[in-house]
Amino acid sequence: MNISFTKMSGLGNTFLLIDDDDTKIKSFVPALCDPDFGVGADGVIFLLPPEGAGDFRMRIYNSDGSEAEMCGNGIRCFAAFVQEKRGWTQASMAVETAAGIKEVTADPKGFRVDMGVPILTTENIPLVWESDTCVNAPLSLGDRTYTMTAVSMGNPHVVLHVPQITTKMVQEDGPRIEQMDIFPHKANVEFIRCISPTEVEMRVWERGCGETMACGTGACAAVVAGVLTNRHGTSVTVHLAGGDLHIQWGGAVDDSVYMTGPAKKIFDGSLFLDDLKKTGTM
Amino acid sequence: MNISFTKMSGLGNTFLLIDDDDTKIKSFVPALCDPDFGVGADGVIFLLPPEGAGDFRMRIYNSDGSEAEMCGNGIRCFAAFVQEKRGWTQASMAVETAAGIKEVTADPKGFRVDMGVPILTTENIPLVWESDTCVNAPLSLGDRTYTMTAVSMGNPHVVLHVPQITTKMVQEDGPRIEQMDIFPHKANVEFIRCISPTEVEMRVWERGCGETMACGTGACAAVVAGVLTNRHGTSVTVHLAGGDLHIQWGGAVDDSVYMTGPAKKIFDGSLFLDDLKKTGTM
Repeated sequence: MNISFTKMSGLGNTFLLIDDDDTKIKSFVPALCDPDFGVGADGVIFLLPPEGAGDFRMRIYNSDGSEAEMCGNGIRCFAAFVQEKRGWTQASMAVETAAGIKEVTADPKGFRVDMGVPILTTENIPLVWESDTCVNAPLSLGDRTYTMTAVSMGNPHVVLHVPQITTKMVQEDGPRIEQMDIFPHKANVEFIRCISPTEVEMRVWERGCGETMACGTGACAAVVAGVLTNRHGTSVTVHLAGGDLHIQWGGAVDDSVYMTGPAKKIFDGSLFLDDLKKTGTM
Repeated sequence: MNISFTKMSGLGNTFLLIDDDDTKIKSFVPALCDPDFGVGADGVIFLLPPEGAGDFRMRIYNSDGSEAEMCGNGIRCFAAFVQEKRGWTQASMAVETAAGIKEVTADPKGFRVDMGVPILTTENIPLVWESDTCVNAPLSLGDRTYTMTAVSMGNPHVVLHVPQITTKMVQEDGPRIEQMDIFPHKANVEFIRCISPTEVEMRVWERGCGETMACGTGACAAVVAGVLTNRHGTSVTVHLAGGDLHIQWGGAVDDSVYMTGPAKKIFDGSLFLDDLKKTGTM
């Protein structure tokens, strides 16, 4: 079976976009994502007809073949792919995802995505904690004490505001915090340095992944935490290793978080799926 | 500028094959090889017209943009690419490389490459040593003593025959041996377990790379060392993490080493080179 695909990058998070039914192809996702014997990517996204009120439907698979509900970097790549493949010229599109319908809007900086309402109640993050929220609380780790704010964007985040971000913090304390007993589902750990009322620097230790170049939900959580603690305004550029994301959050409990960022086509490709199964000799 | 390419894999060593002049494209090699913002590969190989007595000419660039003289996994991928792109049906082809003309022959197991004559004199490997060759010599490292044989295949190798290969050996002792003062140009380190007169298992610590899935010159050096020390016959299958290579060496000082192994096409792609330079927003 011959397939066509487009490799796209959202801040260094890479996806193979396929305009085809996923049924026959999804079992090849790990082989497609393998950098040594396959194409190489962080995930595969299928463009499907809508089942409900959306304009299009997206299914996203991780490189291990498991299905993901949603991905901020992925949905921007999906929107760019729809624009090119389907000649979509409207200002916005409603994308059906496993996490509900997401509105994506074209923007001079790329695409703007409604990332939903942040969850601040510790029980729902989940975080085992003495009070209902965890904002500007001390977190002791060895002889260092961080100031943490906990936020869920559908996945748990702990945001640590620091005067300077060091590799030692991210790579040594990141995994220790991720694994702490107070996070029953573990946590993504964001280290944030505030630069100005409209700019922060972020490095992220992703749950189950380690340090990554960009985490969309992490950038959202970071700005929610910064707004809650009056560290910056409601419209902030987050500088990540993979590039910039722009995040807006009004500050009310029922305000959605909006993420704006790039999606970049790398190349078009085609291959015979059956070839991927072959190993050894030609 | 729009370019077409084919990604191929030789035992997990991946290359982008381009049927075009390298002059304008070579500066994009690091961007093309970048897995996060580019296509992703270990190197880029250009198919060029011959300048001398060869049928074709190959130029190979590493992912950092530096030029490599030759690569055993790469030249098999080159031959498979020539067969497809140029409809080459002859049994063999003479490929001009920066290391001279290499004869490549089609084989049921993939392609057979004349890898040249091994160098055993310690001065030319180079290895600082008390005698002219280094065969079955003890190498002490902490409380462990290896049995080593040193061989150059154009690059320096130290072959260690062991009863069992462990990850600790490869990943701890590998880098320590690579960096020993007796190897003025450092060394690739092969750990070899003999299975039968026709089969060995190999894991390799590559100079400057760390553990890799396959090293063509390392497999050649390993079989040369095994033949020299009467551990196996002259025709041996080497089991590597990335797959199998078949190595033949007659045992005389002027016998060439022949390597046979697979080359596998993964996909065809095309892209606009100028897009690779863009970062950030679309």
